[in-house]
Amino acid sequence: MFSCWLSRLCRGLSTPTGRVTHLIQGSLSRRLMLSSQRIPELSSFVARTNTCGELRSSHLGQEVTLCGWIQYRRQNIFLVLRDFHGLVQVVIPQDESAASVKKILCEAPMESVVQVSGTVISRPPGQENPKMPTGEIEIKVKSAQLLNTCKKLPFEIKDFVKKTEALRLQYRYLDLRSFQMQYNLRLRSRMVMKMREYLCNLHGFVDIETPTLFKRTPGGAKEFVIPSREPGKFYCLPQSPQQFKQLLMVGGLDRYFQVARCYRDEGSRPDRQPEFTQIDIEMSFVDQIGIRSLIEGLLQYSWPSDKDPVVVPFPSMTFAEALASYGTDKPDTRFGMKIVDISDVFRNTKVGFLQDALSKPQGTVKAICISEGAKYLKRKDIESLRKLAADHFNQEVLPVFPKANRNWNSPVAKSIMEEQRSELIRLMEIQEDGVVLLTAGEHRKACSVLGKLRLECADLLEARGLVLRDPALFSFLWVVDFPLFLPKEENPGELESAHHPFTAPHPSDIHLLHTEPKQVRSQHYDLVLNGNEIGGGSIRIHDAELQRYILATLLKEDVKLLSHLLQALDFGAPPHGGIALGLDRLICLVTGAPSIRDVIAFPKSFRGHDLMSNAPDSLPPEELKPYHIQVSWPADSEAEKSSLNQPYHPES
Amino acid sequence: MFSCWLSRLCRGLSTPTGRVTHLIQGSLSRRLMLSSQRIPELSSFVARTNTCGELRSSHLGQEVTLCGWIQYRRQNIFLVLRDFHGLVQVVIPQDESAASVKKILCEAPMESVVQVSGTVISRPPGQENPKMPTGEIEIKVKSAQLLNTCKKLPFEIKDFVKKTEALRLQYRYLDLRSFQMQYNLRLRSRMVMKMREYLCNLHGFVDIETPTLFKRTPGGAKEFVIPSREPGKFYCLPQSPQQFKQLLMVGGLDRYFQVARCYRDEGSRPDRQPEFTQIDIEMSFVDQIGIRSLIEGLLQYSWPSDKDPVVVPFPSMTFAEALASYGTDKPDTRFGMKIVDISDVFRNTKVGFLQDALSKPQGTVKAICISEGAKYLKRKDIESLRKLAADHFNQEVLPVFPKANRNWNSPVAKSIMEEQRSELIRLMEIQEDGVVLLTAGEHRKACSVLGKLRLECADLLEARGLVLRDPALFSFLWVVDFPLFLPKEENPGELESAHHPFTAPHPSDIHLLHTEPKQVRSQHYDLVLNGNEIGGGSIRIHDAELQRYILATLLKEDVKLLSHLLQALDFGAPPHGGIALGLDRLICLVTGAPSIRDVIAFPKSFRGHDLMSNAPDSLPPEELKPYHIQVSWPADSEAEKSSLNQPYHPES
Repeated sequence: MFSCWLSRLCRGLSTPTGRVTHLIQGSLSRRLMLSSQRIPELSSFVARTNTCGELRSSHLGQEVTLCGWIQYRRQNIFLVLRDFHGLVQVVIPQDESAASVKKILCEAPMESVVQVSGTVISRPPGQENPKMPTGEIEIKVKSAQLLNTCKKLPFEIKDFVKKTEALRLQYRYLDLRSFQMQYNLRLRSRMVMKMREYLCNLHGFVDIETPTLFKRTPGGAKEFVIPSREPGKFYCLPQSPQQFKQLLMVGGLDRYFQVARCYRDEGSRPDRQPEFTQIDIEMSFVDQIGIRSLIEGLLQYSWPSDKDPVVVPFPSMTFAEALASYGTDKPDTRFGMKIVDISDVFRNTKVGFLQDALSKPQGTVKAICISEGAKYLKRKDIESLRKLAADHFNQEVLPVFPKANRNWNSPVAKSIMEEQRSELIRLMEIQEDGVVLLTAGEHRKACSVLGKLRLECADLLEARGLVLRDPALFSFLWVVDFPLFLPKEENPGELESAHHPFTAPHPSDIHLLHTEPKQVRSQHYDLVLNGNEIGGGSIRIHDAELQRYILATLLKEDVKLLSHLLQALDFGAPPHGGIALGLDRLICLVTGAPSIRDVIAFPKSFRGHDLMSNAPDSLPPEELKPYHIQVSWPADSEAEKSSLNQPYHPES
Repeated sequence: MFSCWLSRLCRGLSTPTGRVTHLIQGSLSRRLMLSSQRIPELSSFVARTNTCGELRSSHLGQEVTLCGWIQYRRQNIFLVLRDFHGLVQVVIPQDESAASVKKILCEAPMESVVQVSGTVISRPPGQENPKMPTGEIEIKVKSAQLLNTCKKLPFEIKDFVKKTEALRLQYRYLDLRSFQMQYNLRLRSRMVMKMREYLCNLHGFVDIETPTLFKRTPGGAKEFVIPSREPGKFYCLPQSPQQFKQLLMVGGLDRYFQVARCYRDEGSRPDRQPEFTQIDIEMSFVDQIGIRSLIEGLLQYSWPSDKDPVVVPFPSMTFAEALASYGTDKPDTRFGMKIVDISDVFRNTKVGFLQDALSKPQGTVKAICISEGAKYLKRKDIESLRKLAADHFNQEVLPVFPKANRNWNSPVAKSIMEEQRSELIRLMEIQEDGVVLLTAGEHRKACSVLGKLRLECADLLEARGLVLRDPALFSFLWVVDFPLFLPKEENPGELESAHHPFTAPHPSDIHLLHTEPKQVRSQHYDLVLNGNEIGGGSIRIHDAELQRYILATLLKEDVKLLSHLLQALDFGAPPHGGIALGLDRLICLVTGAPSIRDVIAFPKSFRGHDLMSNAPDSLPPEELKPYHIQVSWPADSEAEKSSLNQPYHPES
């Protein structure tokens, strides 16, 4: 439906893109063929008989009533009416007897809302518009009604009119009329509905709502707090329904899912929202492979039909492999440029920083090869990559041109002997114009910097016109075998959970739990799409003793905060596992939207503000009284305080 | 699926009820006949091959693997295994070679979780259990695995074991294993899924998520507040997505719905939850009839197939009629006992309080007739009804027995002359043993007290064994033509919205808006089921000027708080309307559950507490710091404060 609208608006409006139109038409017919599903009735229960976008030659002679917005008007003769479904041309009657209809249709400002009734007629020969799905017909109007007028708009509802994001967010209700927002929100709705069909109707999952007024979880520093009417007592908004979903398994619900609203207070981080949505899933008696198959089926089933179909099973990679080859736990596998360990090539090097690195026990030399780099990258590009490595990772990076005739004035590069050069070419399969970026140091650090440079290089090459990452390609990847624990950042002698404390250890590593916990891998798995983490989950601990040992002995958490969960595990908890998919991010990638704010109807700004309604807002102190709280004003905000204390003028 | 499980558990366990079994069997076959929908695969992706509840004679000879909880064990020979889907009998092997299997199955405590593999075999002749859906077969076990043990439970997982609600809520994860909770939650999930199919797939609605971190709405005194990281700035949790759904219509989304989480802080009110769920709907270009047809179709489509089908259209009644005949805006129309105005009968009465009432300009005499009341009600019942009227309404109520030979020693009753008596019999169609309860006063007050007594009488009669309200009957009713405004409780000279300020006035009454606003009826409608309000909505104001006039001039609200909405109406807002259904209450009525807490997985207690996890809970002051708030301790809670200030020991 939306895609139909998309193609129509695309073709009828100002930004016709052959590619989109083509895709959409293909998708529509494919959907009609593949699925026997009833097409939704879009005009049931309302004043109109049809949508603006659906009329064709097959409707000729029909009496129709349409409702929509005035998109534009030509010489008081034609008017183009728009609704969510498309555009249609309306002929303004010119004869005396229809003067009142003419007056309404000619005087209403653009974006006014009108209802028109009339007959579907053919356009005169030669006046058909093949770019417009309704371009063969027009409406001969008999009556018209002005439903609402429109004042002067802050921006035009035309896709080619560029506006700042702040303006779009302030007038979100106008921005929502745009082609792209309608497409994104309708695709989201449709895709979630298909996910529900797959889970509920095909696999017997139970959709269960869990509370969002909960209590602080251990380590829940990013949870919003909500004062209750009991002095000093607070609810918290949970970051996920993790505890509840596990308790549902203990409760024998067997297969749970929820499209769950979650909350995370991270202050202002780009492309994060204080509230977000995840597809939350938990199953009893399942293993990793079971969850992975479920999710592969889920994405395949719900994937929009105007995109290339999803191929299953998804490849998988261990965390160790991801780090070694891509320098990250979320590799973008749409392109190569993998990290290669070339330590052996440089065992006898004279290059100082390589020598230094290799003299240390954990020292390595690593490299990536940029194919055609010498052709497409400029010297300043290479320099900016080196600077990035130096500034953000404190790592030296050396560019080498093994087969190119260029050799920038790098004294170090000259120290690479001919023998090393040919070994490098062999090992890394370097072609003409390949550029090698080389670094040295501890494995993890060397990989991280090259992982970052790999992505930067891809951006640079694509800015020069190369296509490394096909925008139509969706490259899914499972990353598995993560470590169960990491050293605490603030105190590396202590351990913290790499993901969360309910993650089960890898069965092969259980024996290490008491001796070398840092070596224990977990049964956590991440789902990565085009280099973005779009989901993660694990098989959980169902043994109360193991859970107590990990929480109390290894993580040194206060188990009292989790006593209900520990107790639940004592009372016949089944083995279970689950996953959560980040819906906003997933839809963002599917639609190709530049930001998750483009797939959310009313998103918050970077700083967590609703620019339309001005939330968060100040409250008069008496409204805080029932909650037994008062504001602790920072010392430097006295001025602000006095202005904010004015009750009922929160916008001043 | 759940109903299948229901019947099995019902029949196999301790509370066999012929009625339920019969209904379920009927419903299952009806569903299989009516719907071509694929039956969910309940054992996909997991260790088992089948659920415990599904095995039949048709599975004989199959090798199966089952996972479940040990429900009971007989003489170390049989074991009954339970999962969400039902029960199955497992034969514990007795031969030496299977000693380890026998040991596992005989030693595991009740409610332990086991996995067994074996063959489906016939039960020996004469040992079939016709009350158990799997009663023809049993499992000859070859291998068994103890997946988890169970410690001593706080209560048995048997439906006949009575437990207090507090205990059930504290161990909710155990309570969820009960037949009734599984049935309720699965019915809820299924019904919501059908609603989504109806809205999305059949009628093109778009499922859109709206924010829950919003700002205070005017008059939003029941909204929870959430401090942000900006000093003195707060988000609020909205009571409904009202503003957002209207803004989506302005945004041209045309048809919106959401299964929306809403929040209301009412302290402790019985059968309310601080967070609740509504089916939230909004449409453009729609009128009242359109919304009503949509909802009738929605309920008909989603109604569980094991209940009597929903008959549409639903009857409707004006607010005035509901008040006059039932004394309430949510009449229970499953039974009669309507209120009758009998003022004319008593124009010449000598009874003092009737005389008094009728001498006033608005005075009326009203009555209800309790059929068979003289037979079923005792004198103390009548007295308790009179006391209720006196205590709660300050109203005198007079019992009259027009055709009964009883006449309690009421001097007033004797003053009712024979002529009035026969007129009463005629007017109210009083039969033998009918009892009339009579009151006098201003219309609204007289109706209210009789409306309350009507429901009390029904309870009393049903406690005596009469059936007035068939529990299988679902009596839907639309109540329409509400007043748009009510006098403010604290200041009756001023007006407040009867529902909310966005409700459109009734088209016939627009002319009264400037002259007699109190007389204006609204385009609000309520949906009532068996005397409970389960939904409400309205056609909204789409005219900015009208909205400004009502907000600023009539309601004297600060329009600044709603400037974004008013501005949106200025920019081509389409006519629109919508409704919200209270999902918790609806599911509660459909399942016949005693409380909405029985249809919510993890409800809060009366006082808004999560008895399982102990939320809300105290927080150490340093966790409040980022939010620039501190607790204002009431003077008498110093002791509490000192205990609560202990960080990380919130349960102490």
